[in-house]
Amino acid sequence: MFELDDIIPLGDKPNDLLAVGELLIDMISNEYDDGSFECDGYTKFSGGAPSNIAMNVNRLGIRSEIVSAVGNDGFGTYLLRRLQQEDMDTKGIQRVDASTSLVVVTKSRTTPIPIFYRDADYQMTFDASLEQRIANSKIVHFSCWPISRTPARHTLERVIEEARSQGLLIGFDPNYHPMIWQRGEDGAQYVKSIISKVDVIKPSEDDAERLFGKDEPVKQLEKFLELGAKLVIMTLGKDGAIVSNGKETLSFDSLATEIVDTTGAGDAFWSGFYAALIKGHSIREALHLGFAVSAYKLRFTGAVVHLPRLDVIKEQFSL
Amino acid sequence: MFELDDIIPLGDKPNDLLAVGELLIDMISNEYDDGSFECDGYTKFSGGAPSNIAMNVNRLGIRSEIVSAVGNDGFGTYLLRRLQQEDMDTKGIQRVDASTSLVVVTKSRTTPIPIFYRDADYQMTFDASLEQRIANSKIVHFSCWPISRTPARHTLERVIEEARSQGLLIGFDPNYHPMIWQRGEDGAQYVKSIISKVDVIKPSEDDAERLFGKDEPVKQLEKFLELGAKLVIMTLGKDGAIVSNGKETLSFDSLATEIVDTTGAGDAFWSGFYAALIKGHSIREALHLGFAVSAYKLRFTGAVVHLPRLDVIKEQFSL
Repeated sequence: MFELDDIIPLGDKPNDLLAVGELLIDMISNEYDDGSFECDGYTKFSGGAPSNIAMNVNRLGIRSEIVSAVGNDGFGTYLLRRLQQEDMDTKGIQRVDASTSLVVVTKSRTTPIPIFYRDADYQMTFDASLEQRIANSKIVHFSCWPISRTPARHTLERVIEEARSQGLLIGFDPNYHPMIWQRGEDGAQYVKSIISKVDVIKPSEDDAERLFGKDEPVKQLEKFLELGAKLVIMTLGKDGAIVSNGKETLSFDSLATEIVDTTGAGDAFWSGFYAALIKGHSIREALHLGFAVSAYKLRFTGAVVHLPRLDVIKEQFSL
Repeated sequence: MFELDDIIPLGDKPNDLLAVGELLIDMISNEYDDGSFECDGYTKFSGGAPSNIAMNVNRLGIRSEIVSAVGNDGFGTYLLRRLQQEDMDTKGIQRVDASTSLVVVTKSRTTPIPIFYRDADYQMTFDASLEQRIANSKIVHFSCWPISRTPARHTLERVIEEARSQGLLIGFDPNYHPMIWQRGEDGAQYVKSIISKVDVIKPSEDDAERLFGKDEPVKQLEKFLELGAKLVIMTLGKDGAIVSNGKETLSFDSLATEIVDTTGAGDAFWSGFYAALIKGHSIREALHLGFAVSAYKLRFTGAVVHLPRLDVIKEQFSL
């Protein structure tokens, strides 16, 4: 268990955050289309939460590395070049004999339904280079994407094991959705089974509902704690968040004053939270800073925005 | 063996051509892009040779049905609607729990390298409805797509078996390419193994080279005959084609006078050839008519163009 006023000892390592998971192409429709799929024009973007978080934390002033797998194809080359243009280290990104994963999103005013084309992303393997990257990092982060399919799942099981033995802080985004999961498999059960093996989880209300069914937020929080979660940060959209370490439960009001685009707001939280922990803040302070970074991001369009250094955000939000 | 002046007896069945195989989305870049993949804009099109051939033959004046599998997603719904708008029967198209297959083509002035996202197309199963469609048809056509992956391969093995026992003419496009094949499997070997089970094959020079290595066209033709092919139509691009039934080898000059776009020229040949056989022409006449339809198509942009009835083309080309 973590005391909220503790400063988590993260040791002295050359890298701060290791983000492990999907790097992919988002192919997004140019127009809104409510169900008919008549829209023909699409635009490609680089996507995937790990690279978004890694880029964010760099801008906030800490170091990061990405571990992913992309195809030996034009899309893979494009994604690597995009990251290199942002001065990211791409040496942890594996090139595999598969198509670079792709998500088609046809924009909708109701609920956009993505179509998933997964191939390279879950071919990520555990190798000596990944082992070294874990040993050199303070925090490791991953979401449900890489654990949803083998062999990436086995890779992540090794990552968790190594990270635990090397004393890294492990953050897990339980963004469970049956559509990304291996067909015919009980993904919710697997997600629940690894919650006790990580340190911090940040479910949304929707994530909790997909895992446990509908219930009140406080009850959902308890279910995560019963599964062995050490620190649960449950986000409630415009209603802020509730956080518990199993001993103390806190409510956080949303710090957002202007909401332009919610894309990437959760990853912005993770980014601020991790950057604050690395900079020596307590868990309680890091939570406030995470929500501040998320509120900052909400003012701009896009999953990754030009964040200032963490101390600028800290001052802006009077934290 | 077929005598070239024979009229193939195709019996009295309610449907003329059954085209079995891939129905998918082609996502094509709006601009030419030679290797850098910097082009961001793409446009979706409906794709897949079976539906192209089925639509072509309808325009030429014979009846057709398509058997394919698409996903339970927006792309699948879009593809069915497109076919319905063309008055095609879509009842043979299976909806499966997978993403509608997608091919991304980034246009290039050198060689465009497609990225394949296959999922729903190879989930096609053999069912009572497919069995009935075979019994009701005179000709069945397929290409390398459905045989390149299981379970669709097993479905096609059943299709071939049923078609043979019901006396259908079987046309096979041996458009072998390792990129669509199941990774780690010798696709060329499999393609060779089914050549003796079909009636007509139409390899291009490139197909022959991928199957046998480089050699002179006449030598390649012999290799197909040695594998048990009954009628081989080997296309040589602007140099026309050579055709053999194992007894007689004919050369055909290209009938093209104006080449605007070569996309779909091979499928236009098949369409004209099948339509002519159905209308009671001999194999020799059907070959001429197939090349005439292909030459007609070359004057227009797109895989499927507004073909006139077969007798109009026959007259235009003085056949």
